Amino acid sequence: MVFELKCSKCRRKFDLKVNKWRCDCGSPLNLEISEYPKVENFSELIKDGQNIWRYSALLPFKEGVTLGEGLTPVLNKKIAEKEVFFKLEYFSPTGSFKDRGAALGVTRAKEIGVRTIVEDSSGNAGLSYSAYAASANIKARIYVPFDAPIGKRALMRACNAEVVECKTREEASLRAISELKNDEIYVGHTWDPFFLEGMKTEAFEIFEEKIQVDSVIVPTSSGSHLLGIYRGFEDLVKMGFLDEYPEFYAVQAGGITPIYDRIYGEWRGEKGDLADGLRILQPPRLDQILDTIKRTNGDVVVVDNEEIISGMKELYQMGLIVEPTSATAYAALKKIRDVKNPLVPLTGTGIKTVDKIEKIINIPL
Amino acid sequence: MVFELKCSKCRRKFDLKVNKWRCDCGSPLNLEISEYPKVENFSELIKDGQNIWRYSALLPFKEGVTLGEGLTPVLNKKIAEKEVFFKLEYFSPTGSFKDRGAALGVTRAKEIGVRTIVEDSSGNAGLSYSAYAASANIKARIYVPFDAPIGKRALMRACNAEVVECKTREEASLRAISELKNDEIYVGHTWDPFFLEGMKTEAFEIFEEKIQVDSVIVPTSSGSHLLGIYRGFEDLVKMGFLDEYPEFYAVQAGGITPIYDRIYGEWRGEKGDLADGLRILQPPRLDQILDTIKRTNGDVVVVDNEEIISGMKELYQMGLIVEPTSATAYAALKKIRDVKNPLVPLTGTGIKTVDKIEKIINIPL
Repeated sequence: MVFELKCSKCRRKFDLKVNKWRCDCGSPLNLEISEYPKVENFSELIKDGQNIWRYSALLPFKEGVTLGEGLTPVLNKKIAEKEVFFKLEYFSPTGSFKDRGAALGVTRAKEIGVRTIVEDSSGNAGLSYSAYAASANIKARIYVPFDAPIGKRALMRACNAEVVECKTREEASLRAISELKNDEIYVGHTWDPFFLEGMKTEAFEIFEEKIQVDSVIVPTSSGSHLLGIYRGFEDLVKMGFLDEYPEFYAVQAGGITPIYDRIYGEWRGEKGDLADGLRILQPPRLDQILDTIKRTNGDVVVVDNEEIISGMKELYQMGLIVEPTSATAYAALKKIRDVKNPLVPLTGTGIKTVDKIEKIINIPL
Repeated sequence: MVFELKCSKCRRKFDLKVNKWRCDCGSPLNLEISEYPKVENFSELIKDGQNIWRYSALLPFKEGVTLGEGLTPVLNKKIAEKEVFFKLEYFSPTGSFKDRGAALGVTRAKEIGVRTIVEDSSGNAGLSYSAYAASANIKARIYVPFDAPIGKRALMRACNAEVVECKTREEASLRAISELKNDEIYVGHTWDPFFLEGMKTEAFEIFEEKIQVDSVIVPTSSGSHLLGIYRGFEDLVKMGFLDEYPEFYAVQAGGITPIYDRIYGEWRGEKGDLADGLRILQPPRLDQILDTIKRTNGDVVVVDNEEIISGMKELYQMGLIVEPTSATAYAALKKIRDVKNPLVPLTGTGIKTVDKIEKIINIPL
């Protein structure tokens, strides 16, 4: 198995241990596999163990930091006459899918020998990196918008992270990069290709459990979740275990719709700002997201606050305690016609966003 | 496999489908297995599936309500020169171990055909039953002390539960029972033997993963967690898969120490009231807890707030986002001499108790 770290645009190649978060040409880096292991069955590639490192034969590190991430359960439900597979990504060390990627990001920092990781985040990723850094005895500095949920910020500090509060999500990104010192590493999940390698384990789990999904519906901000799952299916297709890709549907929230805008022109509907995890105006990997949607015959779907609220209500009434961002995928699912056997990751726990419950589902606190 | 529902004291036998929460003599009921399946290997008893119903060959129902509970990861760490197995019970539908038991409790209500469950809880169990009832399309009425964490109460309501706020934890128990109607079922986890059958799956998972534990250290209030894990080991011993039981250590928090008081006389140390999950003054199954400790050569350990705070700090600095109640077991672990290969369940997520983080680990919110 040979991994290559390459620029997604100019194709320049870098050493796997380089401390770089993008190419000198300004484009995101990709991890590509040039030689796959030759096996008859996927199961030959899987190790024992209850975390994502069971798939280390297909990861850029043989072993790494773990807090028990991965192997999230799948709930099968009939929704709007569709057979739906909810992947419960909130069963995780810090309550969101980000833990899969953070495990890789922090492992990489350790491998390079860097003692401080730097990240910017609307909340979930920051908590995830804080926890993994703590477990690896590495320092974390996290830049967040000042209005990131208070609970997420307090928990980051409890894990010993330095939390830097910024005016906006964009300022958080800019400062994380501009204040980076030479002996630190920027692991920003909107850029980091190692994060995507962590996320791809979600696809491996679906395949290992023999669940036939024909589409994937993912809340999309930086695209790290959508592109990560796609990376997993890419490995499975390239090794010959699958013939084709599921259709990839990106879900955006009204008001912040860079993917929709590029495909269909400016979106003019209502706001969807209850989805506090979907706030990135200019995703670095936008071209890759568009390419994935197109290549898999998928689409982009925009939902607004009314749809998010009604999605939240229905999910809670199924006993699924999710954050508003997760409800966007559920709301989108109901709008997409003819979608078959969709995988719908429920991205994060609603326990973190309990301060929004009152506003969202009209429950007095 | 034959289950019998029997009084723990007068041994009177009841039909498995009776709607009763205790014996007419006032004592708790037990579920006992009179005939075990005859198999060579434990694995023959296990079904496919990523939830506790994989063990339904040893449960009182062939299948049941699920939200993906069980199969929680184990983290192996060296703490105070002991090989420790943390079982991450916060990887669960509502963020605590209670989900294993609630799955059974709500399944039982469905089997009997009752449309409303009634529970009293300091918070975690109430949320758990609310979510499972919602998923089974059954009503839930939950009695809580008025100072149960606000987040837990809001999430219960989001799952459509009726939440009744009481002056104290004791009043919650009394009212839950006294206001019960004939067509409702009281599933109070401090009494319910079906809850224990759900909890025993934790022991099965440890055995299935071939983890050798010689002791179990559990925060103990009603004892449902400790007794549930014991029930699992009991099945394994009686089927001949294990020769002996691990030592069971019950952990209490200073101020509410009914187990300690019965063994050693009144406890006179500092308070441990940061452990908001350990509040039951008179556990209905106190005799069974004492018997389990004695029979397995275990003990009771009391911790105070200072020890809980220092335990919390250390757990967060390992990236383990737990509630204060979980930290009691960790704090106890460090106090018990000569304990070997302990299993330490980390009972619930710290995300629910974020309002306490400031007080506990001196983090400004």
